[in-house]
Formats: sequence, C-alpha cells, structure tokens
Amino acid sequence: MRNLSLLTDLYEFSMANGFQHDLPATQATFDVFYRRVPDAGSFVIAAGLQQVIEALQNFHFSEADLAYFKTLDLWDPEFLNYLANFKLDCQIQAVAEGTPVFPREPLLTVTGPIAQTQLLETLILNILNHQSLIATKARRLTFAASGRPIMEFGARRAQGPDSAIYGTRAAVIGGAKSTSNVLAAKAFNIPAAGTMAHSWIEAFPDELTAFRKWSERYPDNSALLVDTYDVLNSGVPNAITVFQELRERGHQPVGIRIDSGDVTMLAQQARKMLNAAGFPEAKITISNALDETIITSLLQQGAPIDNFGIGEKLITSASAPVLSGVYKLAAIEQNGHVEPKIKVSASREKLTIPGKKRVYRLYRPGTKQAFADLIALEHETIVGESHLAVFNSDPLSVDRHHVLTAFDAQLLLKPVTLTTTSYPSVQAIQTTSQHQLAELPRATQRLINPDVYPVYMTAALSQLQTELLSQATPAD
Amino acid sequence: MRNLSLLTDLYEFSMANGFQHDLPATQATFDVFYRRVPDAGSFVIAAGLQQVIEALQNFHFSEADLAYFKTLDLWDPEFLNYLANFKLDCQIQAVAEGTPVFPREPLLTVTGPIAQTQLLETLILNILNHQSLIATKARRLTFAASGRPIMEFGARRAQGPDSAIYGTRAAVIGGAKSTSNVLAAKAFNIPAAGTMAHSWIEAFPDELTAFRKWSERYPDNSALLVDTYDVLNSGVPNAITVFQELRERGHQPVGIRIDSGDVTMLAQQARKMLNAAGFPEAKITISNALDETIITSLLQQGAPIDNFGIGEKLITSASAPVLSGVYKLAAIEQNGHVEPKIKVSASREKLTIPGKKRVYRLYRPGTKQAFADLIALEHETIVGESHLAVFNSDPLSVDRHHVLTAFDAQLLLKPVTLTTTSYPSVQAIQTTSQHQLAELPRATQRLINPDVYPVYMTAALSQLQTELLSQATPAD
Repeated sequence: MRNLSLLTDLYEFSMANGFQHDLPATQATFDVFYRRVPDAGSFVIAAGLQQVIEALQNFHFSEADLAYFKTLDLWDPEFLNYLANFKLDCQIQAVAEGTPVFPREPLLTVTGPIAQTQLLETLILNILNHQSLIATKARRLTFAASGRPIMEFGARRAQGPDSAIYGTRAAVIGGAKSTSNVLAAKAFNIPAAGTMAHSWIEAFPDELTAFRKWSERYPDNSALLVDTYDVLNSGVPNAITVFQELRERGHQPVGIRIDSGDVTMLAQQARKMLNAAGFPEAKITISNALDETIITSLLQQGAPIDNFGIGEKLITSASAPVLSGVYKLAAIEQNGHVEPKIKVSASREKLTIPGKKRVYRLYRPGTKQAFADLIALEHETIVGESHLAVFNSDPLSVDRHHVLTAFDAQLLLKPVTLTTTSYPSVQAIQTTSQHQLAELPRATQRLINPDVYPVYMTAALSQLQTELLSQATPAD
Repeated sequence: MRNLSLLTDLYEFSMANGFQHDLPATQATFDVFYRRVPDAGSFVIAAGLQQVIEALQNFHFSEADLAYFKTLDLWDPEFLNYLANFKLDCQIQAVAEGTPVFPREPLLTVTGPIAQTQLLETLILNILNHQSLIATKARRLTFAASGRPIMEFGARRAQGPDSAIYGTRAAVIGGAKSTSNVLAAKAFNIPAAGTMAHSWIEAFPDELTAFRKWSERYPDNSALLVDTYDVLNSGVPNAITVFQELRERGHQPVGIRIDSGDVTMLAQQARKMLNAAGFPEAKITISNALDETIITSLLQQGAPIDNFGIGEKLITSASAPVLSGVYKLAAIEQNGHVEPKIKVSASREKLTIPGKKRVYRLYRPGTKQAFADLIALEHETIVGESHLAVFNSDPLSVDRHHVLTAFDAQLLLKPVTLTTTSYPSVQAIQTTSQHQLAELPRATQRLINPDVYPVYMTAALSQLQTELLSQATPAD
C-alpha cells in the first residue's frame, strides 16, 4: 500500500512542530463538514472512510521522508525525532459510508494530541472530499435514471489514476451498477462492463464483418456499437443480421450501444427496428456525454433507453467538480478542561459550530421516517428531550426557535475502530445508502430546487455558539 | 511503483482478445489529440509524458490479475497466456512535455500490434488528459498573475491523491512556482510553501500570542495569517508588533496572508499599514478561492498583491474540469501495406485526420516567431515545400487553400525512448514551455477570446482526408 502521509500541506507540519513545542499536552477535536452541496442539491453522500482508515493505519514517515525534512531545515530536531517514531494516538468518529449528510453537520471528527490532529487534515479532506463528491453525483444520476442501470465509463477523462479508481468506488456507493474500469472492478468487486469501441469496427473491411467477428468471439455477450457509420441505415440493420445469425446458433444477443447523434430519435427508431425483427429483449445503451439533466430530458421525451453509460460528467462531477469540505477546530482540552472553539468570519456563513458534538437523525416515533437531524453537545441526553433550538439554514439569522416533542433518535457519528481490516463491500454500502435515502423526505432528493431538510442544534449548543461568537467578535 | 496496467476499460481487453484472434499480424497507429480547449483558450500545455512512459515500462499482469481475468470468463485461453507473458512492442512518438499544442494535432501517437495499441488507450488518456488539463489551467493563472508567483494550495480539494500529486506536477509545468503539497514537493523537487492555518491562531489565548509563538519557532520564516478575527483592526496590527520584535532580534519578517473578505481593500490598507510601520518589503499573499478571472480583476483594481495561493480552482481546473483528449485509429498495416483510417461522424467536428503523420511548428525564416503548425503525412518532405492546404478550424468547411512560401519547420512529435530512466525536471519543463510560449503570437495567450492559431494540413493529407471521407460516407 502506498504511504500517503506526506500528502499533507507544509503548514500542517509547521503547525505540528509548533504545537509539539508550545502545547505538547493539549488535545484537540477537529470536525469535518461542508457548507454547500454541489449542484445545489440538498445532501452529500459520505464516502471514503475505508481509505481514510487505511491511510491512518499506514501513517508513518520513512527514512527518505526524514532525510527530505532535514533538507527543508524548518523544524526542530525533537519534532523530526517525533515523526521518525510517529505513533498515531487519535480517536475518529464518522458517519457510515453511504450516509446522506447535510450542510454544516460533522461527518467525521478527529480527537487527539493537537499536533497529530493537525497533521491529518489534508489527507482526510483529500479522500473524503473526492469520494463524497463522486458518490453524490452518482446519486443524482441514479435518481435521474429512475431505476435504469448507470454504468461508470469515465476512466479516460478522470483526474489521474486515483480519480478513476476511487471515483469508481464512490460512484458505486452512490448508485452505479457497473464500471468499465477493470482495476476498480477487481479492487472493489464491482461488475465490469463494456462492449467494443469504434476502432474495432474500423479495423475490419466493413461494419458487418466487424460485428460478425465480435459475435464469434462473444456469442453470449454481443452488445454492438452501431454509430460508427450510420445508426439507422447501417448499424442497426447490420446488428439485426448478426443477432439473427446468433439466434440461429442458439445464442441470445445482448443489445446495441449508441454513442452519438440525436439519441432520442435514434433510440426510438432502433427500438422499433429491433422489435420488428424479433428482438424486443435486446437492450439499448446510450453513452454520449450524459449527465442527470440530459438523462431526465431523454426519459421525458420517451427515449426507450435501458442502460446509461456515463463518462466524464460522473467521474469528475464535471458540473460541480469540488466538494468544499473543511476541517475545523471544535475544541481543545488542557489539564482535563475542555474549551470549545469557534471560528468567526466576516461572512456569517463561515461561522463554525463549537464543542465536542454528537449528530443524530430524528424519526417520527415508531417509524423510519426521518424529519430532521440534530447536533448536540457530547454530554447532552437527547432521547426524550423536547426543547431544541433551530439551527437555521439562513446564516444571517440564528434566533429562531423550535420545540420538538416526540421523536426517535439515531446516532450518525459513531466511533471508528482504527485497527479494523474488515470493511463492508461497496455494494453493501450502496444498499445501506439506498435504505437511508428512503427514510428521508422524497422532496430532498429532487434534482432541481430540492426541499431543505432541517438540521437543528440543541438549545445548549445554540447558546454556546452565541456566547462564543459574542466573545470572539472584536469590539468596534 | 504501482502497476496501472488494469487501469483500462474492459472493452480494450475484449477488443485486444478479438484482435489477437482475428488480426494477429496487423499493426495499428493511434493518435492522441483533443478537439476543444478548456476555458475557451487557444492551446493546451501537454503534460504527463513521464508518467505514461513509466506506466508503459511497468506494463504487465500479475498472477492475481490473471486469476481475476479467469473469473470474468470472457477471453480466450490463448489471450490470457499472451497477457501472462506480455511484452510491450509499441513505438511512441510524442511532443515534449510543456509544449503548447493546438486542437486536432496529435500530441502522442502509438504504433504497434493492434491488440497492444488498443490496450494502452485508457491508461494513456487518463494520464495525459489529467496532467495536460492542469498544466493548461496553471498557464492561464500564471498569465493572469503577470509575473507574480502562483503557489499551488489545492491538495485538500483535489480529486483523490493522484489528482493532488500529479496535478501539482502539472501545475508547475504550467507555471506554478511552489506547492503546499509535501508529497509532490519531495517527489518532483518543487519548492514547498505555506504558513499557518486559522487553527494555529485559535489554539492560543489570543492572536498576538499565536503570532509570537510562531515567530519564535520560525524567526526567518514568519508569514502570518491575519484574517482569523479582523484583518485591519487585529491581524495586521498584531503582525506589525511581531515583525518589529523580530527585527529587533535581527530577523526579517516574510509577510502576511489574507484568506477572506474584500481582498482588494484589505490588501491596499494592509500595504499602507505595513509600509507606514517600516515593512515595505513584507509580502502580501492572497489565497481566497482565486481563479484567473479574479486575479485579473484584483490586479486591475490595483490590489498590491505579491503572491497568489490557488486551491481548488487550479488543482481541479474547476471552471473546466475535463480535457477531452481522444485516442483514434489513424492507420492499420497488414502485409507491409499501410491503410490510412478515418472516423466519420454525424458531427463534422469529430472527423479524424487519417494516416501516419508528422507535426511541425512553422517559423518565419531565421526567427523564433512561430506562425502556424503543420500536419503532414509521414513520408512527405516539408522543408522547402510550398504548397499547403489549410486545415480549417471551421469544421464545416475543408475547401479553403493557402500557399506558404518560406518558413523554418521544427518537428513537434518525436520518437520516445521507452527504456529511458532520465527525465527533465519539472522546472526545466516549465522553462522550456515558457520559451515555446514566447515563440507563439502573444494574442494566442489571451485569456478571453484569444486569437486562433492556424493548424494546416499538407495538400496531400487534405486530399487523403477528403477521399476517405467520400468512401466512408454511406450512399443515401
């Protein structure tokens, strides 16, 4: 396994060096959360926890790393010695992968010696921001496809190998059913998918010969790419010829793929031709620069599409290619005293939620219908408690209140066992995620203008935030 | 080194299996090129060749890979045996990293057994598309910054570890001067940069104490983050206090960093305060969600900024996160006969340029002023030739002609030695790239509405394309 411990901003090391010198006995808690949902959705699908755990299990510095640090000539010899003998001593809490999480609620927290917690920031954010971004985009595409399978086809347009490999993992967490990427398919036990490229057709004298050669090699796996020359005048007729030959030999053709052109019209005409030729079960796959908007439009137009192959728009989340998750100091602890911390800002939206916290999902009593999330201070008892302050989604107002009288509460942030070597499969995560989504109000999943799902703070937490804000704001 | 040979779409293997069976003696040439420049620029900075070569040097399949292939139950036993004993037998030509390349001209070509050339498609595109995208974005940012250094700060928002690591490499090729990413800094010998985060300030009782503690650890490296509470009423005054203390102890402060707020106003006021306090040499660094548009605007407003730290907008090329490079069949060769290939399409823009080709950059005689690129057939003699057909940038028209009478020509696509273990440093590539850019018309570098740089085809090549197009278009 690659050691990613150096995938860390220089200033994390410089701060850790200072913390080891100035605050060696201080413990800190950092929260990972995000403020805005990509594509103006209402939630993010959390993903990447397995890779975070694996990176932390492997967090150490080699002789070569230490030799490099010496060349920088920035840090104390005691700190370099500390890095040489680094032993991770942090506690992690996190939401399960696949969990839909909402703006400003922590999806992972790190508690430990402040130097160590600081050192983990960049690596944790890199992994969680990436995978959660792609899982969220895959969820949007899956929603748009209304039950039709999404296939991940983006490896060639991904932002480097990991973007293809872990992006595919995240895409499956978010709902993709298969991938063209053999490395990801093997690594994460995902069904591998794909048929031929145009180069196969071009390498033979004509399209019919190319299709026949393919069907000889793959008699039970013949999905034919029909848009090399002319979909309706050449591709589909030739495919039907070969499908008939296959059937005569006792095989069942898979279907056709269209990668260009007026997809709705082509799919409709191709469907008619396939049906008329006796192949109503032959599937039509579309793979032409699709995103959730185009998929929605194609289905609204009645395009008879069975499968969607999604390239760059999924693997890079092209319409919103960044999840801006942050890692913010929530508390420090010195001599057994916990001091909650807040980050103020000129922009109210950037105000953080102080203290060591818990995050709950609230359900109507006795049901699986979630209606809000709740952020509480660590020591608060929640179940049965009734007085809650709204954590208002309007950052310009914090003074609205709301009283809840009856709910079931389920803890979202749970302790992570860093010694684990056993993880749920990506398909299991996908299934769990779909169950969690089914608990949320359906309108939160809408692609355009989704309903805002409430995230509350307890009264005590809201009061703490207000107090710290007033203390931290410099007098004019 | 990781083996990335499985970072390949399933259909590449399926086609290779078929090619090994049906066309075992056929050689093929594939071209890598792109059709559109991200952000509506006029060129792409080619990057990633070193990582392509390294991946090809390590292209093989492990026992575990072969065991996985057997579970797929798709390919012939002979092909699995071929993969088990895979020996790469391809020739690569490529433009040097850092070269500005224009739409539709090949930046890399692969020639070899058709099965092998097909197998390399996904991996080569993944690497080149990613690094060229980020190098191109870095070039835009560098252009906007007009000589002020660009620092790469994006690791936490990158699309996974490789996006951060190789994205940083590409950013330096495109002009970035330093990075916060320690792994990339070490791997590619790039200056590492960065100061403190807000958490450093918050961990101490007050900002002044935090600044003092920092200056004690880093007396010669004190760049202070001044926007934790209030830039002008707290951050800058405290920084000046600490700078004065540093100077009294014989050290030179570095400067301040501003990460939020009305950056132009804050930088102007901070500059005045620093100058008035006797620190005109203290640098001002800005790092707040910058891109080339914002940088241009800040500098037009006269913001006195010395350095730009760029996060997500660079490392993901957020405004245009995909470079759509393709890998298209240009020719096949059987029994010593080369057959040029064209891919037709319903969209004229997707028409490919057939044949085994050469790419030249043309200069005014005796100067280093490039005025056009030229794509020729492999066997054509160019220097001194005068009759050229325009390769028109308007895909709807191919019939314009143009005659060139005097030029110097320099070959852009050159053979790559796959056994090399010696590569230019990223800084050397950056320098070479800047020299190549200086040869181009300045107006091609403009960020908005850049001049179109001509890419010509020779008359013979243009004629070949027209012939193949008419043969390939099915009669109505």
